Amino acid sequence: MTQAALSDLDVAHRMADAARAAILPHFRTSSLNTENKLAGGFDPVTVADRAAEQAMRAVLAELRPQDGILGEEFGAEAGSSGRTWVLDPIDGTRGFISGTPTWGVLIALADENGPFLGVIDQPYTGERFCGGPETATMTGPLGERPLQTLGTAALADAILFTTFPEVGTAEERAGFERVSARAKLTRYGMDCYAYALVAAGQADLVIEAGLNAYDIQAPIAVIQAAGGIVTDWQGNPAHNGGRALAAANAEIHAAALELLRQP
Amino acid sequence: MTQAALSDLDVAHRMADAARAAILPHFRTSSLNTENKLAGGFDPVTVADRAAEQAMRAVLAELRPQDGILGEEFGAEAGSSGRTWVLDPIDGTRGFISGTPTWGVLIALADENGPFLGVIDQPYTGERFCGGPETATMTGPLGERPLQTLGTAALADAILFTTFPEVGTAEERAGFERVSARAKLTRYGMDCYAYALVAAGQADLVIEAGLNAYDIQAPIAVIQAAGGIVTDWQGNPAHNGGRALAAANAEIHAAALELLRQP
Repeated sequence: MTQAALSDLDVAHRMADAARAAILPHFRTSSLNTENKLAGGFDPVTVADRAAEQAMRAVLAELRPQDGILGEEFGAEAGSSGRTWVLDPIDGTRGFISGTPTWGVLIALADENGPFLGVIDQPYTGERFCGGPETATMTGPLGERPLQTLGTAALADAILFTTFPEVGTAEERAGFERVSARAKLTRYGMDCYAYALVAAGQADLVIEAGLNAYDIQAPIAVIQAAGGIVTDWQGNPAHNGGRALAAANAEIHAAALELLRQP
Repeated sequence: MTQAALSDLDVAHRMADAARAAILPHFRTSSLNTENKLAGGFDPVTVADRAAEQAMRAVLAELRPQDGILGEEFGAEAGSSGRTWVLDPIDGTRGFISGTPTWGVLIALADENGPFLGVIDQPYTGERFCGGPETATMTGPLGERPLQTLGTAALADAILFTTFPEVGTAEERAGFERVSARAKLTRYGMDCYAYALVAAGQADLVIEAGLNAYDIQAPIAVIQAAGGIVTDWQGNPAHNGGRALAAANAEIHAAALELLRQP
């Protein structure tokens, strides 16, 4: 196949495949929590992170040489197309070193309006959540399924995720807790997997702070393709990072936003 | 095969297989978070819970009719052998309704000294963690691997799990936070999967409170077979439930226990 014959989604799949192959040999290895690592000489997370980003950049060099790249490990590389691939090879390194299947490979494709194609891949469970102009689909242990967010309208019926109970600053924590106090259920510890669950219609809200652009661009594209909405805590675009509110629909988004905006 | 030719572990595998088949059709169904459920007419979690425990009891009726049963959904059934199968068909129902792969099927076999065989099964990821007199093994996406706990000796190097930040009562939360403040990393939201990660050598400690016997007996057997130790917060047997401290080894157990015991 020529590079022109491959869709952007095809390219993203090849990148996710390459990242999986680079990372999985380092997940749940016995060396991961050894003193060797703490002594600073050898860090399997960093090794896996870098190998995965290099593998994804190699796919782009071959198939999309004209596009720019922004990656967590190797920074920004300018392109000539006006499009940028935004990459986080392992989002959720604390989950990774703890062995939880909650970290993921994040791949987004953005233009001047923000991300319009995204992949959240969990290599260990074999789950891949894809969202873009013509797709909103997941594959995994149960086969292929459409991604479709929930219609939950009231906070009292909503399931809310964040990764750490402390969330961010004291002010950010207070904002989160205003929403959490009204939600049906609050759960923690899911890293980027929480955004995938919103896209898959299993949860209603994710609230996080202190994000980088590469942490949130893939979730934005996947959730929007599935019918949801992602903004910052003021209702503005979130694709440059910082504070994020991901919601299953406009109604539950508005309900959470009102509480986050309070002083 | 006659029933005598099947080992207890073989029987446990058949029970776990039966539970998987009963539960998976109800996981991540679109009806799970609908208003229908909230109206009280139809609860897929309860349906899956009951179907799985019935399926496991049917295996025991055929293969181990002389053993007793203690199950979360259908209570206690006396046996004549002095042995009891202790069953939690879905441990972590909040994780289940949120779509996280952190809930599990718990199967333990106990005698008058407590559980000596245990299975923690995660049907969606296809992971099964087994511990007993002659086994300490997991199977999953990466194939079959031995279970072996970590040798971490200092809290400053330890990874700690609990399911909810609030843990239990205010006193219990304070005990947990004394350990958490000294640990390298604290993570939340893993339900019974946290115990499996200790057995698999990925984490060092799990601290929980408010448990039932069927929540903790399988984790006890799996972790002990893998080289770890599980007690209550006073260092006594935990198999009747209540407060549990699961640890990768005796040294890290002692370090955490000292902090939990403080008034």
